[in-house]
Amino acid sequence: MLLKDFGLEKIIHGIVPANKKWIEKAQDRTGRLIMPTRALGKLHDISERLCGIQETLKPSISKKAVLVMAGDHGVVAEGVSAYPQEVTGEMVRAFLKGGAGINVISRQVGADVWVVDMGIIPKLDPALLEGGQWLLVNKVGPGTANLAQGPAMKRQDAETAILTGFHLAAELFNKGVEILGTGDMGIGNTTPSAAIGTVVAGATIEEMVGRGTGIDDEGLQKKQTAIRRGIQVNMPDSDDGLDILSKIGGFEIGGIAGCILAGAYHHRPIVIDGLISTAGALVAHKICPTATDYIFAGHCSEEPGHRIMLNYLGLDPILNLGMRLGEGTGGALAMGIMEGAVRVFREMLTFDEANVSNKESA
Amino acid sequence: MLLKDFGLEKIIHGIVPANKKWIEKAQDRTGRLIMPTRALGKLHDISERLCGIQETLKPSISKKAVLVMAGDHGVVAEGVSAYPQEVTGEMVRAFLKGGAGINVISRQVGADVWVVDMGIIPKLDPALLEGGQWLLVNKVGPGTANLAQGPAMKRQDAETAILTGFHLAAELFNKGVEILGTGDMGIGNTTPSAAIGTVVAGATIEEMVGRGTGIDDEGLQKKQTAIRRGIQVNMPDSDDGLDILSKIGGFEIGGIAGCILAGAYHHRPIVIDGLISTAGALVAHKICPTATDYIFAGHCSEEPGHRIMLNYLGLDPILNLGMRLGEGTGGALAMGIMEGAVRVFREMLTFDEANVSNKESA
Repeated sequence: MLLKDFGLEKIIHGIVPANKKWIEKAQDRTGRLIMPTRALGKLHDISERLCGIQETLKPSISKKAVLVMAGDHGVVAEGVSAYPQEVTGEMVRAFLKGGAGINVISRQVGADVWVVDMGIIPKLDPALLEGGQWLLVNKVGPGTANLAQGPAMKRQDAETAILTGFHLAAELFNKGVEILGTGDMGIGNTTPSAAIGTVVAGATIEEMVGRGTGIDDEGLQKKQTAIRRGIQVNMPDSDDGLDILSKIGGFEIGGIAGCILAGAYHHRPIVIDGLISTAGALVAHKICPTATDYIFAGHCSEEPGHRIMLNYLGLDPILNLGMRLGEGTGGALAMGIMEGAVRVFREMLTFDEANVSNKESA
Repeated sequence: MLLKDFGLEKIIHGIVPANKKWIEKAQDRTGRLIMPTRALGKLHDISERLCGIQETLKPSISKKAVLVMAGDHGVVAEGVSAYPQEVTGEMVRAFLKGGAGINVISRQVGADVWVVDMGIIPKLDPALLEGGQWLLVNKVGPGTANLAQGPAMKRQDAETAILTGFHLAAELFNKGVEILGTGDMGIGNTTPSAAIGTVVAGATIEEMVGRGTGIDDEGLQKKQTAIRRGIQVNMPDSDDGLDILSKIGGFEIGGIAGCILAGAYHHRPIVIDGLISTAGALVAHKICPTATDYIFAGHCSEEPGHRIMLNYLGLDPILNLGMRLGEGTGGALAMGIMEGAVRVFREMLTFDEANVSNKESA
């Protein structure tokens, strides 16, 4: 299917809320399992929401995948990152070797990793790359423009980025993937992400901006200045997801937003990771608020703005482990907990099945 | 080996701190992995402590087990539980059927479950029980005495309970188990656990006592009164672990304390669960403070006293999911996160191996 045949309007119209009736049926089953009322806390919330998303009392997230979206950022010219820009491409190569954090954690939880070149500067030839991972080349451009000076990309590029993410995710769902994690790689990408958080969640730049991969005080100042200037120069419309993405976003952030819309459209849960994935979630939310029903927040990052963004979306993070790597690592790790939630829901006996006395008989 | 040949004194003398040199070597390796400095947060603390415990840079927790210690409690006569006492035995049967929370989560993380009758009231014949789980019968007695009226058990029984836990855990280690979770079953056992927390951690009864499996306001009052009376009547010596366990403890709590001492003695990590396991940890800590080096706190329970107890021990819980089931479920679920930490430590490439530019080259 061509992108133009499947535009954002059609996607938005195809998205409905997670099914409340199935959630209620699931809550009823939880109440009959052999334990004090809802004694496994958030595990029940997770499994019941999965029932609502998949419209079943036998939810399954066995077939897992992570899409790691990579892109470069013109705003690194402002001195906002502790690492040189070439690290984006170097890390993509490391993903393809299977040796980065996201590869390791995905192997543990049984998730396939797909790496997407959404717009990094170097040209990597997938055919020449070693290792067992896949590189999907879908460059929207060779890195974004510097958002501190003008729009990061054209509005049309923003739409292309989102539709690319949508179609890549949809293809995985067609192949049987039941849960999708979103990941990111892009030196400098905490800057557009914090900018999006500032505009959408209404926080101050000081509250939103952290040290990313580890900048010093001077770098922190530069980052705040770049974001302040980017917002002043571009004046993004905080109600228009495409406008926000094009003016102060990134190609990989658009790809992530597309994944989320695809999950919502195809009734599949999406697990987001840290600051960058959540910036993608904010863009998706602005385009279609209902899509948020399909998002699970894998963890809460050490980046200070992340909690603010999650609160705005009404999402409760599964893990709190002081992580701030990105790549999708927090989301992938949380898939193990979600798998536990599903198994408890499906495999734990009921009071009747186990012949255990319930509270009422006391 | 007979219990009398292997007393507490010998155990205490055999316990040394986790090895600081191996922890430092591990921290050095973490610093060379391809990510910003310690970007996976607590995962690094976990893997490095495991290196210190196992004295290696190739820590392994592949072979996992959970020992679920069951016991009955005379203090239920005070009306402290929402469930009838026969549920203890019924739940042990459910464990042996493989249908309870701990069975489900252990299957997910690949841990064997061993159920131990440390002193429940009913007599269960292991030979007659269905299902693929194991029941180890090591009754110290048919339930404890009512701690609100006098000591829960004799001092000698307390020592027997601890040594039983020690030897059962040691046997698993001899069979190759690399990480052991502690679990519990015993209607009424949040009462002795909160009593132990009050005495050891120095909190007030009001701070320590929660609703356990779900008692109402009247039950909460009764529970607080039972604990207050138990402490007044028995006057446990807050510096003597055996005295605390015998006067206001439980058989399964002693067994858990023994598991922890065994982990410390045999250089194996122990993952504790919620309030009851942590009461066992407080007893073990009082007997041998160094043993705490070998304990990982799987999660923080909804029971209000649990956080106080963990703080006293200086333990940072891995998960915070609002769980309060016990059985070992929080510890077992956390094993999945610990496994991720080990894999990241062992499998992630270094900057040199991956040819990725580090920060210094920026």
